[in-house]
Amino acid sequence: MSKNAYHHLKDLLGSDYYDAIEDRITYAYDGSGLKHLPDAVLMPRTVDHVSEILRTAGRYGVPVTPRGAGSGLTGGAVPPAGGLVLTMDHFNRIIQIDTENFLAVVEPAVVTADLHAAVENVGLFYPPDPASMYFSTIGGNIAEGAGGMRAVKYGTTRDWVMGLEVVLASGDVIHTGSKCIKDVVGYDLTRLFVGSEGTLGVITRAIVKLIPNPEAIKTLLAVFGSMDAASRAVPDIFQHGLTPRTLEFMDKRVIRAVNRVVDSGIASDAEAVLLIEVDGPCEAVEIGIEEVARVCRANQALEVLVARDEKERERLWKSRRSIHSALEALPFKWAEEDVSVPRSSVATMVAAIEDIGRKWDMEIACFGHFGDGNIHVNLSPRGDRDKAQRLYAARQELYENVSSLEGRIAAEHGIGLVKKEDVRWNIDEPTLNLMAGIKKLLDPAGILNPGKVFPNGMRDQ
Amino acid sequence: MSKNAYHHLKDLLGSDYYDAIEDRITYAYDGSGLKHLPDAVLMPRTVDHVSEILRTAGRYGVPVTPRGAGSGLTGGAVPPAGGLVLTMDHFNRIIQIDTENFLAVVEPAVVTADLHAAVENVGLFYPPDPASMYFSTIGGNIAEGAGGMRAVKYGTTRDWVMGLEVVLASGDVIHTGSKCIKDVVGYDLTRLFVGSEGTLGVITRAIVKLIPNPEAIKTLLAVFGSMDAASRAVPDIFQHGLTPRTLEFMDKRVIRAVNRVVDSGIASDAEAVLLIEVDGPCEAVEIGIEEVARVCRANQALEVLVARDEKERERLWKSRRSIHSALEALPFKWAEEDVSVPRSSVATMVAAIEDIGRKWDMEIACFGHFGDGNIHVNLSPRGDRDKAQRLYAARQELYENVSSLEGRIAAEHGIGLVKKEDVRWNIDEPTLNLMAGIKKLLDPAGILNPGKVFPNGMRDQ
Repeated sequence: MSKNAYHHLKDLLGSDYYDAIEDRITYAYDGSGLKHLPDAVLMPRTVDHVSEILRTAGRYGVPVTPRGAGSGLTGGAVPPAGGLVLTMDHFNRIIQIDTENFLAVVEPAVVTADLHAAVENVGLFYPPDPASMYFSTIGGNIAEGAGGMRAVKYGTTRDWVMGLEVVLASGDVIHTGSKCIKDVVGYDLTRLFVGSEGTLGVITRAIVKLIPNPEAIKTLLAVFGSMDAASRAVPDIFQHGLTPRTLEFMDKRVIRAVNRVVDSGIASDAEAVLLIEVDGPCEAVEIGIEEVARVCRANQALEVLVARDEKERERLWKSRRSIHSALEALPFKWAEEDVSVPRSSVATMVAAIEDIGRKWDMEIACFGHFGDGNIHVNLSPRGDRDKAQRLYAARQELYENVSSLEGRIAAEHGIGLVKKEDVRWNIDEPTLNLMAGIKKLLDPAGILNPGKVFPNGMRDQ
Repeated sequence: MSKNAYHHLKDLLGSDYYDAIEDRITYAYDGSGLKHLPDAVLMPRTVDHVSEILRTAGRYGVPVTPRGAGSGLTGGAVPPAGGLVLTMDHFNRIIQIDTENFLAVVEPAVVTADLHAAVENVGLFYPPDPASMYFSTIGGNIAEGAGGMRAVKYGTTRDWVMGLEVVLASGDVIHTGSKCIKDVVGYDLTRLFVGSEGTLGVITRAIVKLIPNPEAIKTLLAVFGSMDAASRAVPDIFQHGLTPRTLEFMDKRVIRAVNRVVDSGIASDAEAVLLIEVDGPCEAVEIGIEEVARVCRANQALEVLVARDEKERERLWKSRRSIHSALEALPFKWAEEDVSVPRSSVATMVAAIEDIGRKWDMEIACFGHFGDGNIHVNLSPRGDRDKAQRLYAARQELYENVSSLEGRIAAEHGIGLVKKEDVRWNIDEPTLNLMAGIKKLLDPAGILNPGKVFPNGMRDQ
């Protein structure tokens, strides 16, 4: 890194500039397990700081990798080219919760679950619920386009962002969107930044939409003798006009893994489990959950448990919540995949995944969000021969199957470093070229989170 | 227009190429009343046609104005620089209604109400309902970011577009979004095109999201003795956890105008009316509409009428539906404005509009969508002196007030030709420059709908 840039930024940031080796190590990795040392870590306190940092970095060609809580799973916050990590920790205020217009103005480092708590406290609801919500931040959620379990009814983070303040690579500060439900003034730039993984700008403020807290929630767990039976129940639920707020599934391998670590109450010969929640007005929820139970039974559910109170609800969630630790406890090193298909193709996709596992001799375990088509596939090659090659081949076949079902190779975990060579499975060349053109327009020197999202060697990269 | 371009396009399109004066006149205007003759009108049948048209236009520098049904109110479909009008009439198929995944694939010339009917026929619901829906098209709705009455609960067109096929000015065909609820592959380009008024590309196909048809709808009309009382009722309704699907208002002048043309049943000394609909599961709707009625009464409603059947529902809608003809029947030439503010500021805004009317000696009549903050302001200068100047001054004061309340100068009718000099009320210079940069990137020769959206003399225009 240029010495001049270093001096200038140290002057600007004072004690918010870190370059001790222990600081650099702390900010070298994220949830993906990938690691690369930055040259310095900056913790700006103002939008002007962020502007000046980007202007300076642009002048000296120093890479800048913006970072939230570093919980991302695809390397979005890892600085592969070194340079600066820009960590937004000081931007941690909930600036406004507007109980009349149902919106909140937040800074990016607000932890998502803290926003949940703050708005629920005044009777409102922010639906996006990525699994990381107790430590990930709103800024990171926006940058990654984070999803969650409630997406089946409420969509993902992108559906809840009304407007953004963003510092561009030039140092210019722009404002997208507004507090208005109806707004057609100029181009709608908000979503261009949602899911752009810090490659187009640094988010310094967001307006998010809220809704009234649902009056009631009911939870149900249904056990099936086959994945096929479970997957027939799902469209049937929707055909009855019901839109659950969560509709999770676990395959038999996940069920068995879970049963090794918790008393889930699920029979170990179960082949598939659906965990379903309905929310809304009290009466509608009572009727709705009974209807869901009826539909599950009509589709050969072996057992249907409806939680009668919060304690029982917690018990039903126990299995779902322990998936991660249950899979970790097995003697396999898992590669976790995150793909999505239109809901009606989940069963086809799970069957295709079985075939892929057999073909490439792998342990496979699937769970995820049946209702929104998002499958988390855990792959672990058996034996020692050609593990990396088999994993690569299996992943390519997975993406091929996903694409042929009009699905996506990345659903809610981003592209980052991990999947950048695979985006062409979903994005044709003219569209990818346009994306690269937009990147070039917004960041001509290529300083913002370089090496992410786009395949290596892309034109304009 | 270059003779070569003309010959080439005539060869390509054959009988779908029109340049008789009567054809050119037919496509010279839109709902704004503005008019400019195109040199030729093209009615392409395939995406390849559209590509070739744009490539040819680019080569010869011929302007291309894409057009849906021409019902827009701000001149978006008028070709101020002449050239080609590209009317999409042949792209009129509903390609797929996916009853399992709740989405439809449509071509742009599908009339919005026809899509409503087709999906409702299989138990599904496409919520956006611009007033023009019986003649406007999905493509036009997307290009303009059209709103409607149900936006208070369901948002506007932009909230229902999952993906687009777009022909760029270069002739390249791109694909944004997907059929997946969760999709984080590459940048999210869909919304960049929604509301871009044909300045960034020509939409040739769209994937739109659907939901199950609500089980029940109930309608209520509440009459108030003051706008203040009506506007206190609105937040109170939302505070009770109710989100109506429509929440319309009329001011006293609109009520009196309506009473001259229909038997509305509303007392002529009423100062404000709210027309409210609740939808959802049967039981919740019954309870919800009673709650809304109770809240209106608690806020000094003089009268609350709840429709007991479809016939009574039609009767309550009669006044709302006759607003346009009622205002037209008055001896005033109205200029209609379309602004929005956060819901809690509607009453403040209506009072400010009264002041503006008094100051500039104007007839003023307001109605619109209280629930989403969208006010349609009708202005008509009294007397003959300096009418245009006073109208200009009143509009500028309107925009100033709107902006100071964090509102928007255009809510659902676009910018087009009519408001392009006013966008700086809402958009700061760095943001406007970015928009202009994106326009330049996507349309370097400036052939796509030139003269729209951006102020004259803007850098890069």
